[in-house]
Amino acid sequence: MTAPAPHFTRLTVIGLGLLGGSVGLAARARGVASRVVGCGRSRESLAAALRRGAVDEIRAGVDAVREAEFVVLATPVSAMPGALGAVAAGFQPGALVTDVGSVKSPLADLLPGLLPPAVRFVGAHPMAGSHQRGIEHARADLFEGAVCIVTPSHDTDPQAVERVASFWHALGARVVLRTPAQHDAEVAWTSHLPHALAFAFARALEEAPSGACEVSGPGFRDFTRIARSDAELWSEILAANRKAIAGPLQETAQRLAELARMLDANDVESLERFLGIARETLTRIAPEGLRSRPSGGENPEIAAAKSAASEGERKITHD
Amino acid sequence: MTAPAPHFTRLTVIGLGLLGGSVGLAARARGVASRVVGCGRSRESLAAALRRGAVDEIRAGVDAVREAEFVVLATPVSAMPGALGAVAAGFQPGALVTDVGSVKSPLADLLPGLLPPAVRFVGAHPMAGSHQRGIEHARADLFEGAVCIVTPSHDTDPQAVERVASFWHALGARVVLRTPAQHDAEVAWTSHLPHALAFAFARALEEAPSGACEVSGPGFRDFTRIARSDAELWSEILAANRKAIAGPLQETAQRLAELARMLDANDVESLERFLGIARETLTRIAPEGLRSRPSGGENPEIAAAKSAASEGERKITHD
Repeated sequence: MTAPAPHFTRLTVIGLGLLGGSVGLAARARGVASRVVGCGRSRESLAAALRRGAVDEIRAGVDAVREAEFVVLATPVSAMPGALGAVAAGFQPGALVTDVGSVKSPLADLLPGLLPPAVRFVGAHPMAGSHQRGIEHARADLFEGAVCIVTPSHDTDPQAVERVASFWHALGARVVLRTPAQHDAEVAWTSHLPHALAFAFARALEEAPSGACEVSGPGFRDFTRIARSDAELWSEILAANRKAIAGPLQETAQRLAELARMLDANDVESLERFLGIARETLTRIAPEGLRSRPSGGENPEIAAAKSAASEGERKITHD
Repeated sequence: MTAPAPHFTRLTVIGLGLLGGSVGLAARARGVASRVVGCGRSRESLAAALRRGAVDEIRAGVDAVREAEFVVLATPVSAMPGALGAVAAGFQPGALVTDVGSVKSPLADLLPGLLPPAVRFVGAHPMAGSHQRGIEHARADLFEGAVCIVTPSHDTDPQAVERVASFWHALGARVVLRTPAQHDAEVAWTSHLPHALAFAFARALEEAPSGACEVSGPGFRDFTRIARSDAELWSEILAANRKAIAGPLQETAQRLAELARMLDANDVESLERFLGIARETLTRIAPEGLRSRPSGGENPEIAAAKSAASEGERKITHD
């Protein structure tokens, strides 16, 4: 069952930072859209998006989404309701809206209600950002091989799910389906908590001896990279998902305290057991090389979504 | 002031894992030694080292170091005293010994006393390992551009320091000098604590929903990579440096608790300030791109060590 990649006559991207810019570049490079319209608040970003070929033209307000079949909301999470509300009256019936936010439940609660009745919203979270920010880092291949979590709610139209999943797949992403709540619980573990830990460590580094900067290896660099992420963006993300983060954070703090006690007692045996279980858990949850799986061919989750859609029902993977 | 790269007629490597094997490969590839002798406990590793060309020949016991001008001790830290003691009677006068251990004070206290009077020990810690282990991952370019911390004690002969620093520099490393105690305090922050945090997080992952494995991005992979390190090796390293790790660990746990309180209170403003300071601290301590500094040309710290040596005194950088 192989469906052709989606093609849109007009695609609109709202918010032209790293992700929005990369959506424009990728959609043009891969022939997903004939024309990309850009919309955003920063004059510099809009100019850079035009110059870099991420968009064909710039439009403001309700004009931005007029005649667009597909709209990608790529502003910071807190700006999304405002940005969508400002263009909502311009949507044509049948238009599809997706987004790139790192937290899904609050958006799933808010955004659909801002749209005209014949416009569908299906949230998404392409895990392809980096600690960099801004249109100047945008790349046509940013989504290639990256996981993109598409997050329909229980009442989302299955055909809309299929089309949004196909869009992200067409940009090169490996699509997985989750409910917004599942998404938030899972990324609390795999993204938000690592960021919180890296930020806490970076904050503590203030107490490190000044010479320490010279004696760091690749382990330090990789471990701390996410603590170079934008503070405004991440304080927003962490706060928005704070309920899902609380448990994992407490669990990790307890494990850290356990580790401290073993070190204090010089209990090498327990320490080795602890580290061994940690290593096994990680290997089980995230086998090395998993991420290098190529994104070619039809994505099984899209196939499943299509199949479910054609049967008039929608299926979400709960594995 | 440019000194020729050191050349040894006979170099012995004791312990042929990732680091020992890479020392052999690099020394041969760069013409640092005419002949590399290998010595170790594992029959498989010895055979693999010969097959891969990391060593020219295998010798056991006191024969391993006979006629060797330079000896690299590359076993796990806890095995070092035993391994050195087993060959000590074979050393020729004037021989130099270095090592690759990740903790330096305990070794600086123990190892020199195991050597004959005319043999000098200058510890080293090449920060070039990875979470991989074993001779099969050894590479001739493992040390290229990597930081190598050379750790003379206050009574170490300055010419010995210069020669050991030149050896690591000749393998491609960027050499920095520290006392063993400075080393341990600094790597507690830049290496041991990140490992402890990554292991604590990986241990906590047991509680993560099973679907979480599918929704992880490059941030997760980089952040957790060091928790794939060998449990036996790392329980030993953490225990050996537990006194230097205690303070940084407590400081980080407090910062994590602070972060948890801000999330609990949904205090986005304090959160953003916290993350901003964390990010700035990290940028100040470890500017991005620092690690990509090329290792070509004479290393200023070696030049300083040489200069100090020629003046009959030794200087350690305290910046």
